[in-house]
Amino acid sequence: MAKDIFHDAVKSALEKDGWLITHDPYAFELGEVSFRIDLGAERVIAAEKNDEKIAVEIKTFLAQSDTDSFHKAIGQYFNYLVALEEREPNRELYLAVPKTTFDDFFQRPFVQKALKRMNTKVIVYEPFNEIIEKWIKL
Amino acid sequence: MAKDIFHDAVKSALEKDGWLITHDPYAFELGEVSFRIDLGAERVIAAEKNDEKIAVEIKTFLAQSDTDSFHKAIGQYFNYLVALEEREPNRELYLAVPKTTFDDFFQRPFVQKALKRMNTKVIVYEPFNEIIEKWIKL
Repeated sequence: MAKDIFHDAVKSALEKDGWLITHDPYAFELGEVSFRIDLGAERVIAAEKNDEKIAVEIKTFLAQSDTDSFHKAIGQYFNYLVALEEREPNRELYLAVPKTTFDDFFQRPFVQKALKRMNTKVIVYEPFNEIIEKWIKL
Repeated sequence: MAKDIFHDAVKSALEKDGWLITHDPYAFELGEVSFRIDLGAERVIAAEKNDEKIAVEIKTFLAQSDTDSFHKAIGQYFNYLVALEEREPNRELYLAVPKTTFDDFFQRPFVQKALKRMNTKVIVYEPFNEIIEKWIKL
């Protein structure tokens, strides 16, 4: 499955970047709803006492139309933000998108506007080299 | 297709409620993205000079898990809100959901919280009698 290949690519890319994968998936129940965010990861920052913690929802943008994939991605991002705020407010939420999607569809004016309005944090990944290209706060 | 049956049920229910269906679908382009909201409708209010205008995204909650359907629904609602604000700010956006979904899944604490946070407007419909049960601003 291409989806699993991309999942493993992001996982491996995060590990190369110094992150420890702590949850695969990061699953929990809140307010009678089950959540299942693709990955949870941590990184120790030498200069600080606290670990940096993230939750990552991995999108492939392979199926359907990009617009349909984007509707679902932004909905997951919103719901996960609301849930994490209650469950673990110091864990930062990222949407991981492949470089090809980021360079094209994500540059369209409406998509940029919606991402900014939601204060979306984005990880741009290169699925074949298994590297994180960019960390972006839109 | 059950989806089409529900679409026609909501359309017919709105008509019974005095609405004129003006768009089916309400489709437009904005910021290099194509939007396709299920219905556009208008109603003349005798007491006012202006028509009341709505756009309605119809959800069936028949496929996948309710949670997955909700992620996509809230994402569409967010993107459509952002788009309508620019394109036609006086058209109100509604999410139409079947009564069985509203009475069960939509009552769960997390779902209520997310709907309120998004200021979601909801139409509760009864697909078999083809009637609008409730108009709700959450």
